Amino acid sequence: MNLISGKEISIPSLLDDKNNIDDFLADSSEKVVVVQGLGFVGAVMSIVCANALNEDYKVLGVDLANEQNYWKIASLNEGVFPIIADDPKIEEFYQQSQKKKNFLATYDTYAYSRADFIIVDINLDVQKNSDSENELTGYDVDLTPFKKAITSIGENCKEDVLVLIETTVPPGTSQNVVKPLIDAQLKARGLSTEKWKLGHSYERVMPGPQYIDSIQNFYRVYSGINEKSADATEIFLKTIISTAEYPLTRLGNTNATEMAKVLENSFRAMNIAFMVEWTRFAEQAGVNLYEVVKAIRMRPTHKNIMLPGIGVGGYCLTKDPLLASWANQEFFAGAGLQQSEKGVRINDKMPIYAFQYLSENIAKLDTRKVLLLGVSYRQDVGDTRYTPVETFYRCLTEAGSKVLLHDPHVAYWEELNLNVASDYSSLLKHKPDVIVISTGHSIYKTKEFQEKIMELSPILLYDTIGIFTEEQIIKFKSKHIVKVLGRGDI
Amino acid sequence: MNLISGKEISIPSLLDDKNNIDDFLADSSEKVVVVQGLGFVGAVMSIVCANALNEDYKVLGVDLANEQNYWKIASLNEGVFPIIADDPKIEEFYQQSQKKKNFLATYDTYAYSRADFIIVDINLDVQKNSDSENELTGYDVDLTPFKKAITSIGENCKEDVLVLIETTVPPGTSQNVVKPLIDAQLKARGLSTEKWKLGHSYERVMPGPQYIDSIQNFYRVYSGINEKSADATEIFLKTIISTAEYPLTRLGNTNATEMAKVLENSFRAMNIAFMVEWTRFAEQAGVNLYEVVKAIRMRPTHKNIMLPGIGVGGYCLTKDPLLASWANQEFFAGAGLQQSEKGVRINDKMPIYAFQYLSENIAKLDTRKVLLLGVSYRQDVGDTRYTPVETFYRCLTEAGSKVLLHDPHVAYWEELNLNVASDYSSLLKHKPDVIVISTGHSIYKTKEFQEKIMELSPILLYDTIGIFTEEQIIKFKSKHIVKVLGRGDI
Repeated sequence: MNLISGKEISIPSLLDDKNNIDDFLADSSEKVVVVQGLGFVGAVMSIVCANALNEDYKVLGVDLANEQNYWKIASLNEGVFPIIADDPKIEEFYQQSQKKKNFLATYDTYAYSRADFIIVDINLDVQKNSDSENELTGYDVDLTPFKKAITSIGENCKEDVLVLIETTVPPGTSQNVVKPLIDAQLKARGLSTEKWKLGHSYERVMPGPQYIDSIQNFYRVYSGINEKSADATEIFLKTIISTAEYPLTRLGNTNATEMAKVLENSFRAMNIAFMVEWTRFAEQAGVNLYEVVKAIRMRPTHKNIMLPGIGVGGYCLTKDPLLASWANQEFFAGAGLQQSEKGVRINDKMPIYAFQYLSENIAKLDTRKVLLLGVSYRQDVGDTRYTPVETFYRCLTEAGSKVLLHDPHVAYWEELNLNVASDYSSLLKHKPDVIVISTGHSIYKTKEFQEKIMELSPILLYDTIGIFTEEQIIKFKSKHIVKVLGRGDI
Repeated sequence: MNLISGKEISIPSLLDDKNNIDDFLADSSEKVVVVQGLGFVGAVMSIVCANALNEDYKVLGVDLANEQNYWKIASLNEGVFPIIADDPKIEEFYQQSQKKKNFLATYDTYAYSRADFIIVDINLDVQKNSDSENELTGYDVDLTPFKKAITSIGENCKEDVLVLIETTVPPGTSQNVVKPLIDAQLKARGLSTEKWKLGHSYERVMPGPQYIDSIQNFYRVYSGINEKSADATEIFLKTIISTAEYPLTRLGNTNATEMAKVLENSFRAMNIAFMVEWTRFAEQAGVNLYEVVKAIRMRPTHKNIMLPGIGVGGYCLTKDPLLASWANQEFFAGAGLQQSEKGVRINDKMPIYAFQYLSENIAKLDTRKVLLLGVSYRQDVGDTRYTPVETFYRCLTEAGSKVLLHDPHVAYWEELNLNVASDYSSLLKHKPDVIVISTGHSIYKTKEFQEKIMELSPILLYDTIGIFTEEQIIKFKSKHIVKVLGRGDI
């Protein structure tokens, strides 16, 4: 999955798309859904709404007409979905919306004035400061872009619109930021502040082969700023989510749902961080931590215990605990969430250790040629945002290694401005001294891959994810040196 | 569940029980199992072995002839099982062993010389040092009593015995402590050190209504110091555990199983600790953390997220992370497990916060009469070992409160030398100003209890466990002041 780069498209100088929008909505009686933000969540949410289960909507997707985002608008209107994903439903849903002509992408905030429902799917970032050892030295949450986006809704929206926040926000944001901003705009426009509705319902989108299902066929939590808002949110969600199979859960207030989102991601981040010191312990005590974890997971009360690995990536787990900690201090005069922040701190440093284990225990790396297998942060997806492989890559190059990159799902590594090969066979011809499994893509588990590895002259094989089977390790060891993170027994 | 106090029984001055043991084993062809330690695990393990699934054993239970332990031996031999438990199978198994006359308790180490299998179920304690705020200032693991017990096995055992360690030990103990100690004794006795077998398989005993099942019908992890030992351990375990339904898991070495035990308890302790700062956050943000957690648990990946509460008690979670941290430093020249230790540190302080929440937000306590409902550390069991209610109780008395105690499962609170009432109605007649639910016993969820509470003059009701239902809270609030830990919404 990758955002298709469209740098050649020129941005319109006059930001007026009113006629297009009017044409698109002309003579239609359907209700209008506007999705604000066309990134990894918003683009997919748009086509889910355009293929709602029991309602016909006209859907307008809105993003900014800047270099970073305009190409997505152009791409969507030219018939090319801007995200490459393994989920065939993505293309199916998108083509269906093209056929039904019920989806238009635009940059014009005029869209908000036509909306019955506005779904907010924009980013809200945390600025992290880290030192050269990837130690978090500080962080900040700048709400300015978020507030600007919400204000543009207030400047244009109908007075009875439902605004549904899906963005992961610091708990307290709907109440303390969104509500007052839109109220102020409505008041300034001489409109009532009593009729609009404000809901919060976070997505649990999981890029990959179940991309659409992670929206349409999955549990949802929601709330409203008042009862009327919660009711309206419920009615809307029931039109796009299979709520018979995946019942909705209403919580008492928007703080609660906002907290639920960052809490569930903090839980996960912390559980990953928890295993780090046990990984070191296992390596020192000659223990195979993978078999230990598998044995512990037999207990239903312990199913969520995590495996060792190279680190944590993606847009959520790397920042959500910080959003929570920030909110408790900024909105509620509370303390920082030390333990949750600690999870982020430890996880940020995981790839550093993975590198140290390689360089100290396995090989002096200063003159080595290293092949990295996988650059994305997750198996079988192409998302490189905050991938731990980035830090690992930097460690290698700083140590003087020449690094070859392979990933079947990433052709271009945007963050590092690097091309990535999709055929590992060609890379093997460059005779790497070290091969590192850095992402657990399925392709590295195949028999073909195994055979290719066995054809090589003796090398160092380093599995940072634990994807090698016992049989593979025995086979590989007959020719190569094999090391696995978290396995002190080999 | 309580160990029956038997202080009146006099300890024999001549520690010789050889004739009794010989009589017990005379003319029998059954193999002999000796269980070392007759506490919460060993006593029950003894009767599980005496009622083995597909083997007839003669079982000898051994404990020390000192003031703390001798009464258990006497009690067992006089037909009274020393643990009161809600599990009817306990009495059934014990009576069955009495009828079959295949279980004898003794203090004489001569027992070890007759054993084919010796199961080690003794305690291995951590000495914690804490300041007045229950902040952990240091801790130590003293292996002396454990080493003494193992040595007494080596001084007496057959040269082909299977020694099975069930005690929760610092990872590395079987290899670094038990093996060399018994080898040395066998060598000193002129016996072979090649024939005996050493296994490790930790119990997952859960006192309460499924006491026996938590041994006989539950998953087990095991290992041996060598393959022969692992095989022998497997064969033995299959005679006492329903392994068809609950398959055994063999791990690669004894370090691995020893680590699995302390890791699973550290996982749990850390997950409890993780929720503490979110509890404060929820209280500050007006959020009902219980409904948030319930919503998050819909996700299979998040089922193990914990609820708020007064704290952590019992013999395991309060010390096992420290055993692990200690072992990594002492046996493997590794670092302390900071994050796992942190779990213990936070949990130790939980009852302090629960008290502060009461005293700061609800009432000035210096002159109040407070009724504590529940003193054990877990619902529907009578185990008071390291109960968080102890710290909570101390806070109350130090603040000058008069404290009344109720627990249906605890008649005598050993650690504090206090009597505990089993009938709450009589305590209510003393007109407490504050009633605290400090343990989640089922009795406090009944309609009868609710009615009694509604008959009282207005009081403060403080639920530290979240057992009140929404309906109950509404009802209670119509008359009383109600506060629930982790609920900012009421």
